[in-house]
Amino acid sequence: MNKNGKFITIEGTEGVGKSTNIAFIKSWLAAKDIEIIHTREPGGTPLAEEIRGLLLTKRGEKVDSRTELLLMFAARCQHVSQKIQPALEQGQWVLSDRFTDASFAYQGFGRELGFERLEQLEGWALQGFKPDLTIMLDLPIEIGLERAEKRGEKDRFESEQIAFFKRVRNGYLTIAEKEPERMKVIDASGSIEEVQVQIEKILIEFYQNYQTEIAMETCS
Amino acid sequence: MNKNGKFITIEGTEGVGKSTNIAFIKSWLAAKDIEIIHTREPGGTPLAEEIRGLLLTKRGEKVDSRTELLLMFAARCQHVSQKIQPALEQGQWVLSDRFTDASFAYQGFGRELGFERLEQLEGWALQGFKPDLTIMLDLPIEIGLERAEKRGEKDRFESEQIAFFKRVRNGYLTIAEKEPERMKVIDASGSIEEVQVQIEKILIEFYQNYQTEIAMETCS
Repeated sequence: MNKNGKFITIEGTEGVGKSTNIAFIKSWLAAKDIEIIHTREPGGTPLAEEIRGLLLTKRGEKVDSRTELLLMFAARCQHVSQKIQPALEQGQWVLSDRFTDASFAYQGFGRELGFERLEQLEGWALQGFKPDLTIMLDLPIEIGLERAEKRGEKDRFESEQIAFFKRVRNGYLTIAEKEPERMKVIDASGSIEEVQVQIEKILIEFYQNYQTEIAMETCS
Repeated sequence: MNKNGKFITIEGTEGVGKSTNIAFIKSWLAAKDIEIIHTREPGGTPLAEEIRGLLLTKRGEKVDSRTELLLMFAARCQHVSQKIQPALEQGQWVLSDRFTDASFAYQGFGRELGFERLEQLEGWALQGFKPDLTIMLDLPIEIGLERAEKRGEKDRFESEQIAFFKRVRNGYLTIAEKEPERMKVIDASGSIEEVQVQIEKILIEFYQNYQTEIAMETCS
């Protein structure tokens, strides 16, 4: 198969259940004989993981918002060029726990750097590279933070105030409104089963479109 | 004194004698009662120094040129916002061993990312912030590398090929042609004394202009 693989990302604020649902997506696709490479941001390569370490560490020094954003995109360029794109070109599917939408939400909205400034940097760094499908798990901030509380010590982002996370959530919802075809919003407030019913619906549609693509490629 | 301090940078390829001449500039200014803060790039703050560590480490993983450049600008944003600008605003002078011109020379020309792409990122990250004076020590690459050889183990940049450094030198000279008022090219092939005679001439002119500025401020 020469066809490029598909690139799926999962997004959401703290405690929305990304890990649980990533496992569900992986096993759903595995049942269709699709092995998906699971990766994450910031990170995904040794250098990008080192950048992640810099970003998450709580420190006395104030971190300039532009510094934070440039570090995010530095890690992302490395991730895309050294891991994601080579995999897609070999026909492999890739699933990333967070991607560029997180920068729009966290730095663009959360840190209030602005949507346009983000778009400029995205254009500069990624030249139009986007996920084929993004699943955003949506939950009122208070509930997510309560769930996340139980995980133990917080990193530099998790230590932010509630107003910050509300802007982040609003950021995600704004992107979903702009790109409803790519970004699907899931109500993550229900039980695991209820959430997975919604995710499965999206996966079925995505997989059917993929099969149609393949079929048309074979015909032409 | 309410007047902002001055920002001077020193640039050049490997082995051109930056350290020796930084010491000369510092002592020349000290004799005029100007204490100058000495800093360097990439680096200058704890976080920026950590980013420097990532950049200079030789590694098995290929480092994407855009990743490298974004890391350089991440460190620079932090350096400018947390150290350089606050110092200048307090009327202090700052002397940096390398600054944005090095990104133009090393990433724009050396890595062939292109001048315009650099300008876009510079505009995004620094919004027009530039040194008041840049002294570029110029030397044929072969001579500089021979001098640098004696220093011991090479970092990731020092390990580049001669063709890379020739592009870097050409980059510096191209900027100097575009901005002759700001960037002064010094022939660094002579003796220490010969080089310092040239640097002193530049410092005298810069200092006289500064004194004129101060005098005009006092009059107005």
